[in-house]
Amino acid sequence: MTTAISPLAPKSYPPMPPIDGLRIATAAAGIKYKGRTDVMMMIFDDQASVAGLFTKSKCPSAPVDFCRANLAGGKARVLVVNSGNANAFTGKKGAEATALTARTAAEAADCAESDVFLASTGVIGEPLDASKFAGVLSTMAGEAKPDLWLEAAKAIMTTDTYPKVATRGAEIDGVSVTLNGIAKGAGMIAPDMATMLSFIATDAAISAEALQQLLSEGVGASFNAVTVDSDTSTSDTVLAFATGRAPGQDMVTDGSDPRLDDFRAALHALMQDLALQIVRDGEGARKMVTVRVTGAESNRAADVIARSIANSPLVKTAVAGEDANWGRVVMAVGKAGEKADRDRLAIWFGDIRVAVNGERDPDYSEEFASAVMREDEITIRADIGLGEGQATIYTCDLTKEYVAINGDYRS
Amino acid sequence: MTTAISPLAPKSYPPMPPIDGLRIATAAAGIKYKGRTDVMMMIFDDQASVAGLFTKSKCPSAPVDFCRANLAGGKARVLVVNSGNANAFTGKKGAEATALTARTAAEAADCAESDVFLASTGVIGEPLDASKFAGVLSTMAGEAKPDLWLEAAKAIMTTDTYPKVATRGAEIDGVSVTLNGIAKGAGMIAPDMATMLSFIATDAAISAEALQQLLSEGVGASFNAVTVDSDTSTSDTVLAFATGRAPGQDMVTDGSDPRLDDFRAALHALMQDLALQIVRDGEGARKMVTVRVTGAESNRAADVIARSIANSPLVKTAVAGEDANWGRVVMAVGKAGEKADRDRLAIWFGDIRVAVNGERDPDYSEEFASAVMREDEITIRADIGLGEGQATIYTCDLTKEYVAINGDYRS
Repeated sequence: MTTAISPLAPKSYPPMPPIDGLRIATAAAGIKYKGRTDVMMMIFDDQASVAGLFTKSKCPSAPVDFCRANLAGGKARVLVVNSGNANAFTGKKGAEATALTARTAAEAADCAESDVFLASTGVIGEPLDASKFAGVLSTMAGEAKPDLWLEAAKAIMTTDTYPKVATRGAEIDGVSVTLNGIAKGAGMIAPDMATMLSFIATDAAISAEALQQLLSEGVGASFNAVTVDSDTSTSDTVLAFATGRAPGQDMVTDGSDPRLDDFRAALHALMQDLALQIVRDGEGARKMVTVRVTGAESNRAADVIARSIANSPLVKTAVAGEDANWGRVVMAVGKAGEKADRDRLAIWFGDIRVAVNGERDPDYSEEFASAVMREDEITIRADIGLGEGQATIYTCDLTKEYVAINGDYRS
Repeated sequence: MTTAISPLAPKSYPPMPPIDGLRIATAAAGIKYKGRTDVMMMIFDDQASVAGLFTKSKCPSAPVDFCRANLAGGKARVLVVNSGNANAFTGKKGAEATALTARTAAEAADCAESDVFLASTGVIGEPLDASKFAGVLSTMAGEAKPDLWLEAAKAIMTTDTYPKVATRGAEIDGVSVTLNGIAKGAGMIAPDMATMLSFIATDAAISAEALQQLLSEGVGASFNAVTVDSDTSTSDTVLAFATGRAPGQDMVTDGSDPRLDDFRAALHALMQDLALQIVRDGEGARKMVTVRVTGAESNRAADVIARSIANSPLVKTAVAGEDANWGRVVMAVGKAGEKADRDRLAIWFGDIRVAVNGERDPDYSEEFASAVMREDEITIRADIGLGEGQATIYTCDLTKEYVAINGDYRS
C-alpha cells in the first residue's frame, strides 16, 4: 500500500484563521491506527446553528442515523469525529456506541446530548469500542484551542495522503465573516451524496434553516460533482456550523436574503475547493480529470452522460496510461442511455478537438492530443449536439495503485 | 501488457463437431495485428435462418447498423468478422466500409448483399480499410472447411487470452441436432446488451422467428448476466444461424413449440457456457465471482443490487486482494438505491455467513472467510430479507493487470 503523498496535492496549506466561538482538540484514542491522532473534537462556546447533508445509502452508518435525529433541533455544542472505524453495519452495537459516545461528549462539553454531533470513518462492520473515548473526550475539552484546523483535518484521515483544509472570507451586511472547512476522503467517493466527511464552520450569525438552504444549494456543484470510484459510502456527512460571533452582524434567518449573496458565493467556493481536494487525493490518483458535457437534451441528461464518462474504468485507465483514447469516451456516451446522435458528437481533450460529426477530426494530431494527456490536469469535453443541457463532473484516473490500496486496505 | 493465458481458462477445449451446411475459413488480412489471423468467414451452403441481438449503445458501430438492417430478412448466406478494428464511430467512412465489405463478401459467396452479416471488434474511431478484404474473401470462400471452429474463435480475439468455444447436442422431435458457438470478449463487457461478439450455429430446422424468440429468452441469464468492467461496448453482437440440414427434422416455426424444449435448454446452456468463458477471461481476471442476491423486493430490484455489487471497484479489488471485506458488499447494497433494510441484511462468502441481522455474524471466523477468498471461484450472496426477488450476476476481480492492459491497449 502506497503512503506517498498524491502528486496532485496542494503545494501548501492556507493559514487557517480561528473562528470565534469554537475550539478544536485532537487525540490518539487507539481506535485502529498506531502513532497518529484518530479523534477530533470541535467545541462551541454557545449553541451554534447547524446544517447537514448525509449519504443517500440505504445502509447508512450509526453516526449518520444519530446526526439526522439531532439535526432537527438545529443547534450544536460539540462535534466528535473518529477515524479507523466507520461504526457502519454494526447493528444494535452501533447505536449503543453512538449513545455512549454522545453521553461522554455531552459530559465533556457540559451540554445536552441533543447538541452533540458525531461522525466515524474507517472499516465497515467492525464494532466500535466507544469506551475508548471515556477519559479522552473530557481531557480534549479542557485542552481545545481555536487554531488547530490543520490538526483536525489530519485526525480524520484514512487512506487520504494529505489533510484537506480551506478558508474563505465574506461580508454580510457590511460585516466581515470567516468560513473554514475541512474534509477527508480518497476512496468510496461517488456522486449523489454529501461526501465522505466534511466540516465547515463560520462566525457568521445565520439561522440553522438559512444555513441548511445555502448548504443544500452548494452541494450539487461541489461534493455531489466528484467521483473517485463510483462507490457511495455508508458514512458520507457534511456538517456546517455558524457560531454567530461576528461582531455587530445581525442574525440572518432567510436563506434567500440578499445580504447572504457574498456569503453564499464564499461558502460554495469553499465547498468546491474541498471537493476538488478529495478528487486530487483519489486513491492512487495521478491525474485530475474534469469531464464537461455540453449540448445534451437537458442538464439532467448531461449529468448522466458526464458521470458515465467519469466512472468508466476504460476511460479512467486510458487517462492513467496517458492515452488519448477518445473511442472510449464515445463508448461511455453511448452506454449512458441518454439521447445521443453518434453523427453529431464532438469530443475534445483539453483544447484539442479529436472527434467531430461522428468521426475522427480531419485535423486530428496524435502528437497534440498526447501532449494534453501528459498534463497533470485534463479536461475531457463531449458536445452531444442536441440541445442546451450541460454538466461538469470531476474525477481522477484509475491506476494500479488504486487496486493495490484497496486490495490491502483492511488487512 | 500481459499476454499470459488467464488462470481461469478452461483446461481443454471441447472437440467441435461440424455443423452440416456451413463451412469456415480464417485469414490474416493485416487489419492491425502482425503474425496472426484477423478475419473469419462462415459460409452457409443454402440460406440459413438467422436471429440476432445487438448492443443497446446509443453510439453503435457501423456493422451493428448493417446487421440490424439485414436481420429483417431472416436469412443468411455469409458472415464476415474481423478483429483489430471495430469500425465504430467512423462516420460515413464506416458505412462505406461495411458496404464495400458486404459487396466483396456477396461476390465471394455468390449471394445477395442482404444475406451478408458483418461484425468488427478492436479499436474504436480508426477508419477500417475494407479494401484489404478484396482478394482475401474470395480465397477464403474457396478454402472454407466445416471443422475450423477453434480457428474461427482465435481469429476474432482482441485482448482475449484464449479462444472461446462451446458445443451442445439436443433432440427436436426425436431428431438429434448439434449447436456450436464461439465468442470473444475480455474488456468493455457489461450487462444490458448482447456481449462483445458471439456466433452460434445449428443444423436444426428452425425458422428465423422461432430462433429469435429462443435467443432473446436466453440472453438474460447468459450474456446479459455478465460484467467485467461495467463498460458497454459499441459493437456487441450475438448472431445465431440454423442451417436446417438435420436429416428428417421438420422445420419448426413457433418458438413456443414444445418440440423445441430440449433445444431451448441446450441453446441456453451453450449461451451461458460462452458468457462465463468471457468472464473467466475478463481483462486481468484472477478470480471468477458469482454474485447471488435473494430476498429482494422483486427480481428487478435483486438484479440492480447484484449489478451494484458486481460492478463495485471496491468489492472487486477486495476480491483481488483475497480480503473477505463484506463491509464493501454492504456499501454496494446501500448505494444500489433499491429498497433495503440494513438490519435484515445477511451476507455469505461461499458457504460462510459473515453478516446477519445488520451486523457481523456472531460465529464469524476470519480464518474460514479468508479460506474462501483464496479460491479461484467465489460466490458472494446477499439476502436482503424483504421479499422473494432474486438474481445472479457473474463477474471477475479488478487487478493491477486490468489497469496495465487498458493503459497500454491502443499504443
